[in-house]
Amino acid sequence: MAEAAFKLAVLKLGCIGAAPLLDLLLDERADREDLDTRAFTSGAKLDKDSCSGPTADCIAYGADLVLLVSPNAALPGPREARQALLDAGLTTIALGDGPSKKAFFKKNDEGKQVMNVADGLGFFILPTDPMIGARREFLDPTEMALFNADVIKVLAATGALRLVQQELDRVISEIKAGGEVSLPRLTVSAEKAVAAGGFSNPYAAAKALAALNIAENVAAVTSKGCFVEQDATRYIPLVAAGHEMLRSAARLADEARELEKANDAVLRTPHAADGTPRQKTALGTKPS
Amino acid sequence: MAEAAFKLAVLKLGCIGAAPLLDLLLDERADREDLDTRAFTSGAKLDKDSCSGPTADCIAYGADLVLLVSPNAALPGPREARQALLDAGLTTIALGDGPSKKAFFKKNDEGKQVMNVADGLGFFILPTDPMIGARREFLDPTEMALFNADVIKVLAATGALRLVQQELDRVISEIKAGGEVSLPRLTVSAEKAVAAGGFSNPYAAAKALAALNIAENVAAVTSKGCFVEQDATRYIPLVAAGHEMLRSAARLADEARELEKANDAVLRTPHAADGTPRQKTALGTKPS
Amino acid sequence: MAEAAFKLAVLKLGCIGAAPLLDLLLDERADREDLDTRAFTSGAKLDKDSCSGPTADCIAYGADLVLLVSPNAALPGPREARQALLDAGLTTIALGDGPSKKAFFKKNDEGKQVMNVADGLGFFILPTDPMIGARREFLDPTEMALFNADVIKVLAATGALRLVQQELDRVISEIKAGGEVSLPRLTVSAEKAVAAGGFSNPYAAAKALAALNIAENVAAVTSKGCFVEQDATRYIPLVAAGHEMLRSAARLADEARELEKANDAVLRTPHAADGTPRQKTALGTKPS
Amino acid sequence: MAEAAFKLAVLKLGCIGAAPLLDLLLDERADREDLDTRAFTSGAKLDKDSCSGPTADCIAYGADLVLLVSPNAALPGPREARQALLDAGLTTIALGDGPSKKAFFKKNDEGKQVMNVADGLGFFILPTDPMIGARREFLDPTEMALFNADVIKVLAATGALRLVQQELDRVISEIKAGGEVSLPRLTVSAEKAVAAGGFSNPYAAAKALAALNIAENVAAVTSKGCFVEQDATRYIPLVAAGHEMLRSAARLADEARELEKANDAVLRTPHAADGTPRQKTALGTKPS
Amino acid sequence: MAEAAFKLAVLKLGCIGAAPLLDLLLDERADREDLDTRAFTSGAKLDKDSCSGPTADCIAYGADLVLLVSPNAALPGPREARQALLDAGLTTIALGDGPSKKAFFKKNDEGKQVMNVADGLGFFILPTDPMIGARREFLDPTEMALFNADVIKVLAATGALRLVQQELDRVISEIKAGGEVSLPRLTVSAEKAVAAGGFSNPYAAAKALAALNIAENVAAVTSKGCFVEQDATRYIPLVAAGHEMLRSAARLADEARELEKANDAVLRTPHAADGTPRQKTALGTKPS
Amino acid sequence: MAEAAFKLAVLKLGCIGAAPLLDLLLDERADREDLDTRAFTSGAKLDKDSCSGPTADCIAYGADLVLLVSPNAALPGPREARQALLDAGLTTIALGDGPSKKAFFKKNDEGKQVMNVADGLGFFILPTDPMIGARREFLDPTEMALFNADVIKVLAATGALRLVQQELDRVISEIKAGGEVSLPRLTVSAEKAVAAGGFSNPYAAAKALAALNIAENVAAVTSKGCFVEQDATRYIPLVAAGHEMLRSAARLADEARELEKANDAVLRTPHAADGTPRQKTALGTKPS
Repeated sequence: MAEAAFKLAVLKLGCIGAAPLLDLLLDERADREDLDTRAFTSGAKLDKDSCSGPTADCIAYGADLVLLVSPNAALPGPREARQALLDAGLTTIALGDGPSKKAFFKKNDEGKQVMNVADGLGFFILPTDPMIGARREFLDPTEMALFNADVIKVLAATGALRLVQQELDRVISEIKAGGEVSLPRLTVSAEKAVAAGGFSNPYAAAKALAALNIAENVAAVTSKGCFVEQDATRYIPLVAAGHEMLRSAARLADEARELEKANDAVLRTPHAADGTPRQKTALGTKPS
Repeated sequence: MAEAAFKLAVLKLGCIGAAPLLDLLLDERADREDLDTRAFTSGAKLDKDSCSGPTADCIAYGADLVLLVSPNAALPGPREARQALLDAGLTTIALGDGPSKKAFFKKNDEGKQVMNVADGLGFFILPTDPMIGARREFLDPTEMALFNADVIKVLAATGALRLVQQELDRVISEIKAGGEVSLPRLTVSAEKAVAAGGFSNPYAAAKALAALNIAENVAAVTSKGCFVEQDATRYIPLVAAGHEMLRSAARLADEARELEKANDAVLRTPHAADGTPRQKTALGTKPS
Repeated sequence: MAEAAFKLAVLKLGCIGAAPLLDLLLDERADREDLDTRAFTSGAKLDKDSCSGPTADCIAYGADLVLLVSPNAALPGPREARQALLDAGLTTIALGDGPSKKAFFKKNDEGKQVMNVADGLGFFILPTDPMIGARREFLDPTEMALFNADVIKVLAATGALRLVQQELDRVISEIKAGGEVSLPRLTVSAEKAVAAGGFSNPYAAAKALAALNIAENVAAVTSKGCFVEQDATRYIPLVAAGHEMLRSAARLADEARELEKANDAVLRTPHAADGTPRQKTALGTKPS
Repeated sequence: MAEAAFKLAVLKLGCIGAAPLLDLLLDERADREDLDTRAFTSGAKLDKDSCSGPTADCIAYGADLVLLVSPNAALPGPREARQALLDAGLTTIALGDGPSKKAFFKKNDEGKQVMNVADGLGFFILPTDPMIGARREFLDPTEMALFNADVIKVLAATGALRLVQQELDRVISEIKAGGEVSLPRLTVSAEKAVAAGGFSNPYAAAKALAALNIAENVAAVTSKGCFVEQDATRYIPLVAAGHEMLRSAARLADEARELEKANDAVLRTPHAADGTPRQKTALGTKPS
Repeated sequence: MAEAAFKLAVLKLGCIGAAPLLDLLLDERADREDLDTRAFTSGAKLDKDSCSGPTADCIAYGADLVLLVSPNAALPGPREARQALLDAGLTTIALGDGPSKKAFFKKNDEGKQVMNVADGLGFFILPTDPMIGARREFLDPTEMALFNADVIKVLAATGALRLVQQELDRVISEIKAGGEVSLPRLTVSAEKAVAAGGFSNPYAAAKALAALNIAENVAAVTSKGCFVEQDATRYIPLVAAGHEMLRSAARLADEARELEKANDAVLRTPHAADGTPRQKTALGTKPS
Repeated sequence: MAEAAFKLAVLKLGCIGAAPLLDLLLDERADREDLDTRAFTSGAKLDKDSCSGPTADCIAYGADLVLLVSPNAALPGPREARQALLDAGLTTIALGDGPSKKAFFKKNDEGKQVMNVADGLGFFILPTDPMIGARREFLDPTEMALFNADVIKVLAATGALRLVQQELDRVISEIKAGGEVSLPRLTVSAEKAVAAGGFSNPYAAAKALAALNIAENVAAVTSKGCFVEQDATRYIPLVAAGHEMLRSAARLADEARELEKANDAVLRTPHAADGTPRQKTALGTKPS
């Protein structure tokens, strides 16, 4: 790559908690001179028809790297979008929630899950980005927004988003360098997320780990509420409980960060204007 | 309009807190049969060059209604995008933060602010959607995400997002009906937001109003930190204080909602599958 | 049964959260004239040798009903104690945590779990009574006590203990009446517990349900920390995270009860002096 | 003592907050090879008849050391049990709440309280282990369990239980060594408890001290509610206030521990497998 | 009394928590046309010399009613001031903390405390207005202010200040009417304060009662820290614990008020412009 | 000055949050041998008639320094009092809230605000000491007291009161020394207050700064509620929101102090018995 800015495309099909801010994650102060970002979205829907338009726009953009974020990456909409991107020769990294695992793993002859991914494709699986409580008696635009705010808080304060950031920083840098590119193929487990969180206080790390575990467990409750129970007197409490669990997880994640504040040890990893990742802890210092 | 789905485009240039979830706000369960949504984004940047590409894609989509969301709508990037949309004959509603006011008002001969808006253009000004503390020593992707989570929580839990939702529901319904369309030209003041919040308990309403007032006041502190103070020992405390104010506002907004829960009086306004807005309070009931 | 008091024996082998207060649960004010309670305990241990002594004492007591509480009821210690009690002709109800399920269910020919319980034996399985984080670097007597305090808070405030109480009240009354006795064979799921919680506010019920789900999920984290990971740098964060999750669950359970207080709707189910269960909600009223 | 395990008996007559976990306190991970524990309980009652059975069983066990825990140790039930244990030649340590002081002190000729204890008897008085609000309109099994959870939290997090642990560790070690045994005769005042708490941060110590003082003051309020006021409109608020005070104390105790977590300075005193007491603070380290 | 405004004098000698706002309590919006208030203060000191000046000024003012507020009303300073006011023929009501009781009660021949008060003198004793932790290592102007803020919060939110207000409203009205005046001679116990609090929710009342009991118990801890312990390593933790107890009490008092807010049942007792006391609960209504 | 004590007068006309404790601020333990303090107050009122009496008394006292505290110092009452003090040759320092600025600044020919203060007059402007929500439907003595408690908490915990203390310590010392006296003419901005707060943790400082900014913004909301809106359905929510904002600010200020406690770094600035200001941080140490 020469002087031209790196072209990053984000293709969002449907919504998971990591999606809304993904196109902002690498240029948090909008001052990177080395990066152009474009996002293409199908709104909340992820059926095939809804996905084809933004996918076509995305391909037309001709990015150096495409992030494809969606729930359940095994569904036809995201799957065909993924294929189209690869067919167009675009380096692609998929981000998905827990159920997306099915898209990237299959059972081998011995019944073990093994990775099964096309060349040129990387992925992040975020099992801690749980399904929303999508029942009409419960979920309106307000509740939807609150749930996403809580997911964002959990993913950000614990380190899950930073792990994604760091891997993307690395990949972009490798692509820019023009050599071999090692695409991430990574399940962002609670443990790995907390490692990227860079906590100095071990109880802060434990609280972050706890928050992520709770968030991951939300999925079982909301899924049961959305898909298993058909009686409103049973599914309404479940979806409501799922959101209460997440609110609790967000509070724990906030507690973790407050502990780091108490020690003036909050890790920050801003980007320099030329895109290189910086790092700092003590609030009064410059990132280096 | 006939049987075809309504085409909604969301053009996001740069980021304000209301932006990340805007394309999801009208189809919160992804089950509306009457609505197709597409979003086009320039990432965090909003200079003219960054804005032109997504604007062109958006025009090509040919939407029935375009939402153009950006900070400071008076800047060249959003201004030219707005003009291009109007030139293309697209019905457009701009959403902006407090500084965006300059784009829609000007002083008349007597020095009074009067509205100054092109035909076919509506707007929402959200003064409670404050500027982020964009200093490299402070703002990294994690802090950026946490700030936006808090803004979303404030805007959602207090009623600000619902006011936007309700106006958009109305406009879409009017466009579908084919008659005259009355575009919103509205400053979403704290008071108007709380009215849309539909609180049953007056102290919940007071807390929501307090949260929005604090959020609105964040802007003065972060702006001073970003633009006025040039000494790091002075601007770091300011941007950090701005985020602490917002965290406090988010907590108050949460308190307001918890009070409504205590009375089983949380207002919910989900969309039916055909897009008609519904309403309910007691958790166990169906929306009607 | 004639005038003699009902003889209740509680045999505690090892410890789960429901155990410490079990012998007090049916005579909360120590004023029941119809009930004699005795508890026999092996302390923290539950190997066969440790269990035999208290079991023998318990049999010698000659109770009308024996509650046998232990973790993992499938282990040799509790299993032989259970057998000895049944051999002695004592009506016995076992209480155990999630892993105890193995003692009462087995796979049938089609591979489905079916109940497999001796006559004269009832059971409660409490999957929400999770394993403690039993690592020497983490667990000392203080941490052990705090964990149990949080488990008790979760089980009590959500309704799990009340469900046990109500079933025992029923069984004792049936035994006293001298007719047929229907022993409980019950997995105290989060949903069933919350139903016994008798919440009037649906958000209180949702918070209780959330608390129980979190508590249930603690087990996976502490088990991994105790049995799977062997590296202290990996298992210490896990057991600490498990306890943080539980602390969070206890806070949610407390929130649920506070919501009921806000509506003066806390359900109370005290025993009368003659042992009959009473019920009340408004704090100022008499139980009836 | 040779290779045989040390035999510890815990005789619980009625209930105070320190009782439920007392038999677990010295073997918190159930892995001590040097210790056998047995507990004998009369349930909630402590009249003479209820006490005689478990006392007899306890004597039959033939322990090296007996802990006799009860409220108000001056009542006939605990008093006769104590005498029987001493008559049987068993080394005995009584644990009691504030009113138990009467059993171990008497006024001398000058009207001063002086210790008055039989040889071979030690005691702990826990004035911070307050009476429960035992009124039928208020206290049901759920409220009883919640109160005990709060007492346990206060006693554990502040250091009161650790002081008991440390004294028992010392006594057991002295008995094992076969030399002279110095039995504890100790009022576990708030100050002494906090000293055993081993707080590194002085505000954590102050909060712990505050929590214990509040807990100690609960007794006056619940006693007034249980014994002085006979009008339900007067005693219900009192017993409810007593439990609110304790809930507040538990929160303060939790705050104290959270402060220690913030400094990674939580003192832990686990037992090794051979029973020797260990000690550590930084979470990542081994106890030594 | 004719048209002239009622002249109220407040003489403050030293400081208790009820003092700082006492002259504002009866004219909370500064719009009473019927009332003139003057306060005279000796600052923090209450020795005889410090008291004589403000007392003389107060007498010179010639009030219709004098409130004399001080700690320990039995000390020479307040005692002589009281006598001087009575000698001058001024109707006087003393307000004091717990130790002030000695000024108004004495033992009779049978050793019972009986009231012993001069004609023309009323009093309020506020045992819940505790002594501050007056040790130089701990108490600076900041800590002093924070302690008083917490005392004010406890006294106001629980009803203690309202009881004083209501009695003063009554006395002023009786003096204005010109008939017999019944002066208050009242120990503002926790129970009486909560009754004046007018709580609608019984748990709010219980929390208020708990807050007052904790506040009352602070005195024993701070007094011990100030007067009994002379070793800094012992008295510093005590005075710090006393302030932590009070902070906890203030939080409980706040919780009580929040519960009332949740039910829109906060009692308010504002004064009309003509001084008559009004009353209201629902926030949206007018006082009547 | 010789051996005679320094005579400090505090003249309070009406009420702001800084007023109630001002006469206690310099003698927090009532043990200064070098200082006599007297306060003179008009109660809540500040019209000219109400002010004249206490002003005359104050002048008669003949202080070495007078502090004149009032809201809106530009009103006739405080203005004439100020003039009378200066005419009497008394060194005077005024303390006022934000609107008081008008009394000490005027526009120069170029329209810029320039200081305009008489010789011998100093001032403090406290913009963070906001107007109360003085509407009869909302403000009763209880709510008034709670608001002032919250203001005191904010001003004390953040450093605003310490800045006043330090300036007064300096001025008194200069007057005592008999040389030139430099009177403070100071707007106590949030930034200056936090600097005096002496926070060691930068997040504590940020929280304190946030608390002060919120407090400062309360004024706009309560003023609008008191003076602009005349419809009760509009002004009641505003004054209630103002008090909720302040409650939130008080909580943030408390959080700031708790962070300093966590680091045992609370700055304390007590006075020695001879009046010299001391300083300390670690709780266990002596001030020096």
